[in-house]
Amino acid sequence: MKSDLEIAQEKKLEKIVNIAEKYGISEDDLELYGQYKAKLSPSVFEKRKDKKDGKLVLVTAINPTPMGEGKTTTSVGLSDALNRLGKNTVVALREPSLGPCFGVKGGAAGGGYAQVVPMEDLNLHFTGDFHAITAANNLLAALLDNHIKQGNSLDIDMKRIQWKRCLDMNDRCLRNVIVGLGGPGDGVVREDHFIITVASEIMAILCLSSGLEDLKERLSKIIVAYNRKGEPVRAKDLGAVGSMAVLLKDAIKPNIVQTLEGNMAIVHGGPFANIAHGCNSLMATKYALKIGDIAVTEAGFGADLGAEKFLDIKCQLGNLHPDCTVIVATVRALKYNGGVAKTDLVEENIAALEKGIVNLEKHIENVQKFGLPLVVAINRFPTDSEKELQWIADFCEKKGVGFALSEVYAKGGAGGEALAKAVLAKLEKPANFHPIQDLNLSLKEKVEKIAKEIYGAKDVQFAAKASKELKNLEDLGFGHYPVCMAKTQYSLSDDPTLLGRPEGFTITVREVYVSAGAGFVVCLTGDVMTMPGLPKVPAAEKIDVVDGKTVGLF
Amino acid sequence: MKSDLEIAQEKKLEKIVNIAEKYGISEDDLELYGQYKAKLSPSVFEKRKDKKDGKLVLVTAINPTPMGEGKTTTSVGLSDALNRLGKNTVVALREPSLGPCFGVKGGAAGGGYAQVVPMEDLNLHFTGDFHAITAANNLLAALLDNHIKQGNSLDIDMKRIQWKRCLDMNDRCLRNVIVGLGGPGDGVVREDHFIITVASEIMAILCLSSGLEDLKERLSKIIVAYNRKGEPVRAKDLGAVGSMAVLLKDAIKPNIVQTLEGNMAIVHGGPFANIAHGCNSLMATKYALKIGDIAVTEAGFGADLGAEKFLDIKCQLGNLHPDCTVIVATVRALKYNGGVAKTDLVEENIAALEKGIVNLEKHIENVQKFGLPLVVAINRFPTDSEKELQWIADFCEKKGVGFALSEVYAKGGAGGEALAKAVLAKLEKPANFHPIQDLNLSLKEKVEKIAKEIYGAKDVQFAAKASKELKNLEDLGFGHYPVCMAKTQYSLSDDPTLLGRPEGFTITVREVYVSAGAGFVVCLTGDVMTMPGLPKVPAAEKIDVVDGKTVGLF
Repeated sequence: MKSDLEIAQEKKLEKIVNIAEKYGISEDDLELYGQYKAKLSPSVFEKRKDKKDGKLVLVTAINPTPMGEGKTTTSVGLSDALNRLGKNTVVALREPSLGPCFGVKGGAAGGGYAQVVPMEDLNLHFTGDFHAITAANNLLAALLDNHIKQGNSLDIDMKRIQWKRCLDMNDRCLRNVIVGLGGPGDGVVREDHFIITVASEIMAILCLSSGLEDLKERLSKIIVAYNRKGEPVRAKDLGAVGSMAVLLKDAIKPNIVQTLEGNMAIVHGGPFANIAHGCNSLMATKYALKIGDIAVTEAGFGADLGAEKFLDIKCQLGNLHPDCTVIVATVRALKYNGGVAKTDLVEENIAALEKGIVNLEKHIENVQKFGLPLVVAINRFPTDSEKELQWIADFCEKKGVGFALSEVYAKGGAGGEALAKAVLAKLEKPANFHPIQDLNLSLKEKVEKIAKEIYGAKDVQFAAKASKELKNLEDLGFGHYPVCMAKTQYSLSDDPTLLGRPEGFTITVREVYVSAGAGFVVCLTGDVMTMPGLPKVPAAEKIDVVDGKTVGLF
Repeated sequence: MKSDLEIAQEKKLEKIVNIAEKYGISEDDLELYGQYKAKLSPSVFEKRKDKKDGKLVLVTAINPTPMGEGKTTTSVGLSDALNRLGKNTVVALREPSLGPCFGVKGGAAGGGYAQVVPMEDLNLHFTGDFHAITAANNLLAALLDNHIKQGNSLDIDMKRIQWKRCLDMNDRCLRNVIVGLGGPGDGVVREDHFIITVASEIMAILCLSSGLEDLKERLSKIIVAYNRKGEPVRAKDLGAVGSMAVLLKDAIKPNIVQTLEGNMAIVHGGPFANIAHGCNSLMATKYALKIGDIAVTEAGFGADLGAEKFLDIKCQLGNLHPDCTVIVATVRALKYNGGVAKTDLVEENIAALEKGIVNLEKHIENVQKFGLPLVVAINRFPTDSEKELQWIADFCEKKGVGFALSEVYAKGGAGGEALAKAVLAKLEKPANFHPIQDLNLSLKEKVEKIAKEIYGAKDVQFAAKASKELKNLEDLGFGHYPVCMAKTQYSLSDDPTLLGRPEGFTITVREVYVSAGAGFVVCLTGDVMTMPGLPKVPAAEKIDVVDGKTVGLF
């Protein structure tokens, strides 16, 4: 069995100018980064301003399991399959982060024969977007601490500093630090925290901006701290907006690469799907809709987190109108949700399937609440039995939703044609998309609506601190923001051990803060890790470059 | 008067493929980063392996003064002038760091009509080299702390960790930090320090490597800590070499851009000139020597630091044979060295010139000790009087060294023709280069040689701790390494207030450590700042992007 990296390296890539040309984009509208990567100039959008948008297909999934469901793989394969069927399709994906690459995962850009390439570049520095975000984030931090050291004329309350430094690295030692030690010339001593770059509010801002001017507007609103009167101190008060924008002026432009089958992939941005909204950039999606007749995109984690945020935050703020949803599941993951141990998943087990399918069922109902047609895509594994697959197909038929097997991992686009046809059937009728989060509701009502309607909770408890801060945020004028729920991805509840379709549970909102620039209020349930650590044996130990060739990314 | 950025932005740039073509390099040997930047593929060197190297001209300066002497400006202008005279010349420079850009300087790539462009790109992310170095540096740090947290099987002594984290940012709060606070899952508590990326040993390693294999060899030798037996723990013991090399595989390739007059500039690497050797990369210089008939390069700070390290470290380790040196000075800086206050420098003052020229005199003598012919270049200012200029010309004639006025700031290459002709005259005769640091001397003897012969010290004192560590490093097998002196740039002595040509002083070596991968032993005299801070009003406050155009870099 070949590794993903081996498959990717075997492929003779087309020059990116040729890929762009297939989609009617000339070299003058590209900013090349080597032969196989480019950024799209604003002119690409300008020239298509009056063109009708393509159809928008969201790929989401059931709650993630330790085996992985293959959302990115399915997105890439579906796009390749649609192109094989003569539909001009562009896939829009998130950029991978360096941290996990050297930690556990070793790389991420689809898998098998449904990948985006050049794989090494994507998983390393790519076009430098994340480094630019890191620099902008840490420039703001340096300006903040410098302001305090130079006299603190804004009267910043040292106990209410919100802004954190960041690095694109899994480094648990930086979660909780004390900075400013040393002599009088070394700044002011205070507690600080590093987060991973994908958790930076600047990542969320970049991914929700419609362009450079909107980016600057959002940057200016970032709340870095509160003063001793309790009023917000913003990035604009520190004079930081222009220089952050200069650092981000190229990062905001969407990147294009290619799938293994030579179709265009836009890969841009990658915010966390818990404390942020977990999708590729709004600009990437908008460009994909102008360039393609169909745009396939994905959202992070399961549909409870990723799809909800895509639909309630990204689509609502960005005025997007999705036309169809694909929910990815695997036979193994459904049996796992039915209580089967990881070691026993290869055996046929209809009873477990029956028990576990309730997880998929709940996600189906949720997507329907947004008014969207949907197709269930089973990412097929060699150990899946025909009987199991048929059982799921029957279940979907009963539910009145689309169903297709996806074999894109093993067969590329050819293995996605059934799925593509099922999606095309859904696209024939117009969708009736409407968000769940009505922005006119209070912040608490929004949380309750998501918890009850999407998660299936009986109740929501707000910690006293959280209640107080929600009130404070409404007083500060953030009541009309959507809420962004930070919850475990492993369960529909806030308890990662509750698989399947838990019922009667209470969601506890522990802590609350506003991402004022991004435009949402983050509600934390349980602990959310914003700076991962490295495992006992990091993937970094296997990664190398030998005779000019990268090895160990997989 | 136009700003440097305005002059740079007015210029209609040539596509970098056309610049390369002028020097016989085809597009296939380039890795493009947009239309105006590219990396040189290894094939560029391979194809010219058997070609005789061009002549190598080093541009250095007297001790820096608050006014700046214009070393980079002179290097660029000299190269343009040589090209105007029909000599195929390439200039090789250092990459600017983001930190100072947002701090005091606001940008650096030459000045006036002797600049390298695109100026904004150079001063921002450029081709991502520094970000790659930051990532590799911090990956090593994360792997180190992870090793300790996972059981510390290498028995690392927590009190003898050498490796520091880094950021390409002026951020004084990060000079002294405590990391690893929090719960048991958050790593081990310890003191740590952030340095600016240009101070990372990885920067020095990248700049002294002859290629990717040599880079890996050097990375493997980095000493990250000592174990409790006092033995070195190296990057290779942490299994970090391959993944660091993967992060650096593109960063090691030299970058090309263009001067305002459309000649090739290689801009690559930029280590500190105190705790490291302060020159652009060895590969950049070697490529420039293969591509050009003349390569003009520069070294950091004054000749006591920059030129000494260029000649003793870079040339000696890299087997380079420089042919001529240019020492840049200004009338104002010479009068400042003669004791004139900053406010009175515009007035003619031959007496002050006479008193201050001893600084130039000492640097002339020093360069001659290396067996190199030299030309003094006076970077002309409108306030310089004819009488003052004539007086310096006469001084140089008496000394038997070349002299030329340089007006490249105001006139570009045309203003550098006199200097170019003076340099060409020196290149007619072969140089007789020999380093001052004989590698067979003991480490202490090397320090003493530099202190006495180059700085003009009477004596060297070693702090007890430094003496002990020098002995330890010799026991560990580093006795044959050259020493890299970290000293104030403002004086030939280790006291920044002693201008001119101080005599009878003692150099105190306070602390010593080895950069085992880079290949030198760092000797610290006085305090050396490896993480700058931001000033009261940071340049960041003026930098912005307005209607797509960058403003405030100067």
